Amino acid sequence: MRLPSLTRASLERHLPILEWSKTYDKDTLTSDVVAAVIVTIMLIPQSLAYALLAGLPAEMGLYASILPLVAYAIFGTSRALAVGPVAVVSLMTAAAVGNLALQGTAEYAAAAITLAFISGVILLVLGIFRLGFLANFLSHPVIAGFITASGVLIATSQLKHIFGIDAHGHNLVEIVTSLFENQHLTNPITLFIGLTTTAFLFWVRKGLKPLLLGFGLKPRLADILAKAGPVAAVVVTTLVTWIFGLAGHGVKIVGEVPMGLPPLTLPSFDGEIWSSLFVSALLISIIGFVESVSVAQTLAAKKRQRITPDQELVGLGASNIAAAVSGGYPVTGGFARSVVNFDAGAETPAAGAFTAVGILFAALLLTPLLFFLPKATLAATIIVAVLSLVDFSILSRTWKYSKVDFAAVAATIFLTLGFGVEIGVSTGVALSVLLFLYKTSRPHVAEVGLVPGTQHFRNILRHDVQTNPNVVTLRIDESLYFANARFLEDYVYDRVACDEPIKHVVLQCSAVNEIDMSALESLEAINHRLHDAGIKLHMSEVKGPVMDRLKRSHFLEEMTGEVFLSQYDALVALTRPDLAGDIAHEDKNAAE
Amino acid sequence: MRLPSLTRASLERHLPILEWSKTYDKDTLTSDVVAAVIVTIMLIPQSLAYALLAGLPAEMGLYASILPLVAYAIFGTSRALAVGPVAVVSLMTAAAVGNLALQGTAEYAAAAITLAFISGVILLVLGIFRLGFLANFLSHPVIAGFITASGVLIATSQLKHIFGIDAHGHNLVEIVTSLFENQHLTNPITLFIGLTTTAFLFWVRKGLKPLLLGFGLKPRLADILAKAGPVAAVVVTTLVTWIFGLAGHGVKIVGEVPMGLPPLTLPSFDGEIWSSLFVSALLISIIGFVESVSVAQTLAAKKRQRITPDQELVGLGASNIAAAVSGGYPVTGGFARSVVNFDAGAETPAAGAFTAVGILFAALLLTPLLFFLPKATLAATIIVAVLSLVDFSILSRTWKYSKVDFAAVAATIFLTLGFGVEIGVSTGVALSVLLFLYKTSRPHVAEVGLVPGTQHFRNILRHDVQTNPNVVTLRIDESLYFANARFLEDYVYDRVACDEPIKHVVLQCSAVNEIDMSALESLEAINHRLHDAGIKLHMSEVKGPVMDRLKRSHFLEEMTGEVFLSQYDALVALTRPDLAGDIAHEDKNAAE
Repeated sequence: MRLPSLTRASLERHLPILEWSKTYDKDTLTSDVVAAVIVTIMLIPQSLAYALLAGLPAEMGLYASILPLVAYAIFGTSRALAVGPVAVVSLMTAAAVGNLALQGTAEYAAAAITLAFISGVILLVLGIFRLGFLANFLSHPVIAGFITASGVLIATSQLKHIFGIDAHGHNLVEIVTSLFENQHLTNPITLFIGLTTTAFLFWVRKGLKPLLLGFGLKPRLADILAKAGPVAAVVVTTLVTWIFGLAGHGVKIVGEVPMGLPPLTLPSFDGEIWSSLFVSALLISIIGFVESVSVAQTLAAKKRQRITPDQELVGLGASNIAAAVSGGYPVTGGFARSVVNFDAGAETPAAGAFTAVGILFAALLLTPLLFFLPKATLAATIIVAVLSLVDFSILSRTWKYSKVDFAAVAATIFLTLGFGVEIGVSTGVALSVLLFLYKTSRPHVAEVGLVPGTQHFRNILRHDVQTNPNVVTLRIDESLYFANARFLEDYVYDRVACDEPIKHVVLQCSAVNEIDMSALESLEAINHRLHDAGIKLHMSEVKGPVMDRLKRSHFLEEMTGEVFLSQYDALVALTRPDLAGDIAHEDKNAAE
Repeated sequence: MRLPSLTRASLERHLPILEWSKTYDKDTLTSDVVAAVIVTIMLIPQSLAYALLAGLPAEMGLYASILPLVAYAIFGTSRALAVGPVAVVSLMTAAAVGNLALQGTAEYAAAAITLAFISGVILLVLGIFRLGFLANFLSHPVIAGFITASGVLIATSQLKHIFGIDAHGHNLVEIVTSLFENQHLTNPITLFIGLTTTAFLFWVRKGLKPLLLGFGLKPRLADILAKAGPVAAVVVTTLVTWIFGLAGHGVKIVGEVPMGLPPLTLPSFDGEIWSSLFVSALLISIIGFVESVSVAQTLAAKKRQRITPDQELVGLGASNIAAAVSGGYPVTGGFARSVVNFDAGAETPAAGAFTAVGILFAALLLTPLLFFLPKATLAATIIVAVLSLVDFSILSRTWKYSKVDFAAVAATIFLTLGFGVEIGVSTGVALSVLLFLYKTSRPHVAEVGLVPGTQHFRNILRHDVQTNPNVVTLRIDESLYFANARFLEDYVYDRVACDEPIKHVVLQCSAVNEIDMSALESLEAINHRLHDAGIKLHMSEVKGPVMDRLKRSHFLEEMTGEVFLSQYDALVALTRPDLAGDIAHEDKNAAE
């Protein structure tokens, strides 16, 4: 071997297929195949519809559902994640690629392919360098707000297909204005198909399963039949359009979908295209990853399995690169689809590969049947799917729980609706980081006193406690770092200025998890300035790791006061020196 | 009164002069005048030199030392801060304005005036909206590194005047290359003046005071004479240059400095100029404010006085606007100068106003005497002043104390030297914020066990503690928020996956100061997924404010386990149910 360190274990870590394939048997195969059949039925109309949403030819949705699934099956760690085109990423693709080319042109499709490739490379790099934590800066409320706003945008954008008119735009104002301008061109037959299909799909979602159960079907079968609703809508509306020749009456149809294997495609390597798509690709990668990893984790936990987020990045990266070389566009793990896959019994990523085989058959054999499929049917599928993502309750929940979170989510929703997906989500992320920094820069500081009869110290403003005019104790409820270092200085000076009797200031550090260099220098300044004012500075309840670090500086030697193991020790030592003989305090000068 | 809410107290808060002028008497006047005389002597050569450093005519340094000082005396809260041109801000002015116009042109001077105005407006706005906390994001090590690197840049840039050659550039590589290219043009007489002046000033700084004390002078007088060293250098080299006609031998001189009152000037209101100067003005404002407020705070603390950071922003904003309307350029509080002012006995901001009168006299009467002043003398003044700012020990101190701080300071120094002041300081700020976020996104989590014979819990990896295979207790040493929410999820799943005996997970929250919405949802997910795996989730030692907030959500109702007041209670309840009758736990469903 030329790579002796490449043990089987590390190989398995990077190629999860090696691990799960070891125990693959006939039972697992059966489970996976059943799940794959159900997911395939669900995925055919979805992949066509999402390609349409992305402004791409319908077949690109199918292509994005073949090779990417195989790539994920090899590199992914989730046993139930179903990868493919999803609504939000399709919308983001349309927004990103729309800046570069006109819908319907070859450049547009080429840009979507390049976008998938860049996104794949970004995901791979993040995975290889274990940078998955970057996705953490997308807070849950920002994601929830973004998904809700995207759902509204997507549903609105699909209304044009329901009305059979033209409309465009990447934000709510543009789309709605455009719809109103063209509403006089509404095609009544298209509208009829669109509305009945939408109504039918909503009914399938809510009412079909109870009905089937009422007919005595087994729950599992009823469930599968309900999931096949969109396929039924596709079949029926296609037949009706063909039989009555509705395409001649202005009903827009999917038209010719090429039959055959996915084409071999190559992304563009033009530096200008890369630089103009890079930020979009980064956003798509991170949004896609966050969505995918959270559903993967939820499903894995149900079986006490685990996924590896950094390896998930590799799996999704491989999927997107696979999409780029086989005529697809950006993909990620879909929420609804993965849940169906899990419920249908998928046991390994092989179920995804079998789904790919199903879609491949569709691409090889079924595409001529899609010629008369009305676009309104696909739009109805999308609308019904995305409206389930819309949940404005995140506004009320955050309002109730935390105003800071509310501000971030409200800004994300407003900006996504008003200015499009990219501005919306980037501002949401920036705002939540800024608000977090702002919060930590003004930490909660409580002046505490002794609860009579105990050794506990509590906030003097909230509790009836004993204090001593010569001793001020401040409990800081935050790690001390550069953003709040000056705040602490100001706070301490304000407290001691003009309060003559103060002789001792004690900082109770039970909630201080870190003191960085700036905070250390602020403590030095506080110590120095309190000394100038004739006041001693003490600390109590300093955590071990923080104390270790302080011992590496000169601060403890310079500090005018002591470090006490507990706040009670501090109070006794400073106010009752007669009792203080046995008080324990840290040896400030101990060599470490 | 048309503004009934404008009480005298609030007026005093916004016009500090109203407060200190009430107790102004003859003694205060004497102290202030003495301090003003000493600062004036120090400021005349400094203001000329820093104007030269900024690439501006020498008189603009004088103008920047008149009206701005009066404005600060009215609006500022520090009683000892000496405002005026300073080295680092002058360098930043040169970098900012150099992008817009050529040195020596009227456009260049006009851009510097506009820069002062924009900077003044920014400071005022930050002050009025109490946004002073923004300056906190400049960490101490980043500032220290930036000042050190700026000192090196400034000293190097002044070598051209010492050698009497031309050189230019905004980073070390450009400046040094330029010096080497032109070194064959070195003027020997200039070099002689430059080197002797530099040597003299270094000696004045280190050796003069002990010598004078040895002659029996009073320490105070010795100190003042030592501070007058630069003035002596100015007088002697000017006389020598005049008497020996050195200007005819290639020694560059200051030349004609207009005599008279500062001119009335107006900033440009051209949108393009504003947008190209805005970021520079923001950086100058924040750097200037941070430098100024830290010296003001140090000096105020010595007399148990206090300054108001937000009012300081107003004071510095007013100073910069005053500079812009009177032919000056950006100013801030100078470190050395303020210390001199304080040591000389300044008691109120009036000392600054008296200094302004002194500089005004200089502008009215002394400027003809400056005609033969060699530029090399001013360069020597600058070099000696800024080399005292250079302190690379920040690198070793941060290396020893915290590698994260070291990374930020090393990047700041390297980028400032290599790419100029603006890139240096912006990257330093961005990097320290990112590193802080990274740290908090991977908090310290300890699995803890009971220290035998106590009720204390400690890290199982560091201490010999008792554990129970059915109960896992995790102590999280960080507030829980979006950036570490997913980390916590991963951590918990990784810990429980494949460890069959686990029946209970306890999160010990003694160091958790905040749980935001994302972390709440992660806790909900953890609770849900542990439930699916047959494990109960408990919490212990949750702080009051955090508990208050949790009670506003549904989490506590959904949580499968309990909230225990102490970790010991949790362990007893979960492992010795026979003893747990009296265990206290928080009432999860209590209405708040």
